Amino acid sequence: MPLPERQLINRIRRTADKLGAAIGDDCAVLDLPRGHKLLLTTDFSLEGIHFRREWHPADSVGHRCLARGLSDIAAMGGIPRWAFLSLALPGALPQRWVDNFMSGLLKLARQYNVELAGGDTAQSPHGVLADIVVAGSVARGGAVMRSGAKPGDFLYVTGQLGVSVVALQELRAGKKLKPSRYPQHFYPDPRIAVGQFLREHQLASAMIDTSDGLSTDLKHVCDESGVGAVVDQIVLPALPSDESFRHALHGGEDYELLFTVPPDRVRRLPERIAGIPITRIGGMTKDRQLKLWMPDGTTRPLKPEGWQHFAQR
Amino acid sequence: MPLPERQLINRIRRTADKLGAAIGDDCAVLDLPRGHKLLLTTDFSLEGIHFRREWHPADSVGHRCLARGLSDIAAMGGIPRWAFLSLALPGALPQRWVDNFMSGLLKLARQYNVELAGGDTAQSPHGVLADIVVAGSVARGGAVMRSGAKPGDFLYVTGQLGVSVVALQELRAGKKLKPSRYPQHFYPDPRIAVGQFLREHQLASAMIDTSDGLSTDLKHVCDESGVGAVVDQIVLPALPSDESFRHALHGGEDYELLFTVPPDRVRRLPERIAGIPITRIGGMTKDRQLKLWMPDGTTRPLKPEGWQHFAQR
Repeated sequence: MPLPERQLINRIRRTADKLGAAIGDDCAVLDLPRGHKLLLTTDFSLEGIHFRREWHPADSVGHRCLARGLSDIAAMGGIPRWAFLSLALPGALPQRWVDNFMSGLLKLARQYNVELAGGDTAQSPHGVLADIVVAGSVARGGAVMRSGAKPGDFLYVTGQLGVSVVALQELRAGKKLKPSRYPQHFYPDPRIAVGQFLREHQLASAMIDTSDGLSTDLKHVCDESGVGAVVDQIVLPALPSDESFRHALHGGEDYELLFTVPPDRVRRLPERIAGIPITRIGGMTKDRQLKLWMPDGTTRPLKPEGWQHFAQR
Repeated sequence: MPLPERQLINRIRRTADKLGAAIGDDCAVLDLPRGHKLLLTTDFSLEGIHFRREWHPADSVGHRCLARGLSDIAAMGGIPRWAFLSLALPGALPQRWVDNFMSGLLKLARQYNVELAGGDTAQSPHGVLADIVVAGSVARGGAVMRSGAKPGDFLYVTGQLGVSVVALQELRAGKKLKPSRYPQHFYPDPRIAVGQFLREHQLASAMIDTSDGLSTDLKHVCDESGVGAVVDQIVLPALPSDESFRHALHGGEDYELLFTVPPDRVRRLPERIAGIPITRIGGMTKDRQLKLWMPDGTTRPLKPEGWQHFAQR
């Protein structure tokens, strides 16, 4: 066997040892708390599609890889418990990159008490390929689905929208960005505490994370709930920029929570949850249309452009 | 947006719709039977590494993708319940390939009553990339681990060893193979019923599947159990060929079960389980060495060469 192949195998072995240490068996065997349901989500992080090695430091790639899964658990009001990482590595990758990737991922895992319980490793035919599985739990009957919104419910969002897309635009324009300039892009903080608060206090009737962009994710909630929505453009918590509203409406990968609250529960909703500001951005309607209230008092149709926008990368 | 990109997005959307149909939410919400533990396993199937489109029909790739996960559940004595498929597709892939891939995967899923409960889809930068997650369950305290083998236990294997590697050698040599010639390679049948039988009747003290090759997988059992093993070469259920013993010892991807049985339970072991023949191939020892009994009565060290062998592809 030629030497580089051997080196690659040894590297994958080392990573596999790290991944497999917790289990050492064909499957992970996991105990769900009594009276809880299992939550399970899986998300790719593919080089050239979800990240670029020349744009994103390795620890940011590891952080974002896990954050995608954690955000899905947050959007159900659940508790993340275990992560499984499938990781395929190309031959020419420095070991240091792998170490920093794992370090970024494991730091976020520790922060949320999530155990890396297993995974798979392989040689990659082209680029770094990661697939993260996050398993969590939620009290039986407690999961906040996308399908629970009713006409008359108010619409809220956490934090700030359209930040990640601005960072991406600058990266695309060839700018070197310090990750500390756009932490929401490089090290997004999944809104786990917010999701759990909303579930525990039975405040949200429906919830989703804004990973695909507000317009697309709101469409998912409307479709699943059989309702429409009106969004008030002027109150959107957007970053000040020339295209701020467009970014807030369609930019993805913000990992904020978008949720609906029945009118009789609105007075119980704090302004901030776990330190994160909450903004009321509109309400749910009967007519199954998505509409945008403009600053001049007119309304126009709101098209789900989030997913498409990001596919252009 | 140029047309091919749009077409690709539509294709991924269609696949995503199929995958997401069952859940329609951020996570799948799943109910584990009372008194059961969760089993979870994840396995890559990467074009150029685990399969080649010119060698493997699309439905075989889909079948093998799921079979890898099911075999891990079988090796714990568990019941497979849900599958999650992360699938990334390159631009130039015919839709028919995707349909046949899904059809092969879903046919095997139906056979074992496994629900495709979710997944992720993405554009692939290079080749077809799949990652399968299989979640199952096992009665609390019932999982058969790799770590339970004791000195004096007998060593058994299901079915036939070294078949898959022979098929691969012929494919590598440029032969066009009919999948029906080597069903164990193209459509391996995970030994789920055997695993469940062994667990229910408390016959196996340790178990693993032979996905990496007998020598490597036996090493895992020995390491986890803190024991050694002796394998009797002449009784190995090998395919008749020039290199049959080498193939049986080191060829991977057979997805048979390798298990140990305490001496006082051996008489309860049938010759066939769920129609699959069972062969006694050796026993477990105290000295932590892996050894091979040769037909001439001598013994020699047995090195774990399965994984390395397959890495040469």
